[in-house]
Amino acid sequence: MSAAALEAYLHANIPLTRAMAVSAVSVHAQGVTLSAPLDPNINVHGTAFGGSVSTLGVLAAWSVVHLRLEAEAVDAQLVIHRNETEFLAPITGRFEAVARIEPQAWIEFRTMLDRRGKARLSVVAELLFGGRVAARMTGEFVALRDRG
Amino acid sequence: MSAAALEAYLHANIPLTRAMAVSAVSVHAQGVTLSAPLDPNINVHGTAFGGSVSTLGVLAAWSVVHLRLEAEAVDAQLVIHRNETEFLAPITGRFEAVARIEPQAWIEFRTMLDRRGKARLSVVAELLFGGRVAARMTGEFVALRDRG
Repeated sequence: MSAAALEAYLHANIPLTRAMAVSAVSVHAQGVTLSAPLDPNINVHGTAFGGSVSTLGVLAAWSVVHLRLEAEAVDAQLVIHRNETEFLAPITGRFEAVARIEPQAWIEFRTMLDRRGKARLSVVAELLFGGRVAARMTGEFVALRDRG
Repeated sequence: MSAAALEAYLHANIPLTRAMAVSAVSVHAQGVTLSAPLDPNINVHGTAFGGSVSTLGVLAAWSVVHLRLEAEAVDAQLVIHRNETEFLAPITGRFEAVARIEPQAWIEFRTMLDRRGKARLSVVAELLFGGRVAARMTGEFVALRDRG
């Protein structure tokens, strides 16, 4: 899936991504980068709202797992089980979320999913602003294989 | 501050709350209840998007601390330091976030804020759907006293 196709998919299926003006910057086998401007995501301090920052991280992490499952032709329901965000520095402009899958974690996840029909995977998304990590989101996802 | 005034404040200062159609249900000294409909907060599964669920919890928790500081006439910058959400059950309709302040935690927070000019407070928001807790958000906030 191209970055443009991912962006269209998010905008069509998760209306909050339109409200946040989320764009997809790059989509690779190992990582997804999403971006959002400050204005629709601003808070009372004139910085990026924590809810938006956390959400962009969740979206990037979810996308990278969703696309990888699709690329490997795995039919599975993917849901978020837990997420945690640490806010490290204020964000005062456009920010990005970069989510990557750890190769070893993916192997274990796929093995478990094939064996049990259910598996968990933790994915970290770094929230970048001005070349620095301004926040870090960790999402724990559960995949449930569709019985074919 | 009334529920209507809190809602107007959120809509005016955090545009994402308008996109999510957040409404304020009740505002008391110890607790704030916010509500959001499913439609603008839906995901690819037709259930409430994790980012929206987590964000409504953050908003309720932030609001209850913000209003309590205001009620006690404390001038302080309030920022989120960390948040964590556990998703327990799918949400398929309007949902609420109920955030409460633990009395003992508030006393310790106020004591530290008065003494050091900086203090942390953890606030839990329960996300309710159909009379059940469908998710639980824990937010850790930092208040920095304005030097007067």
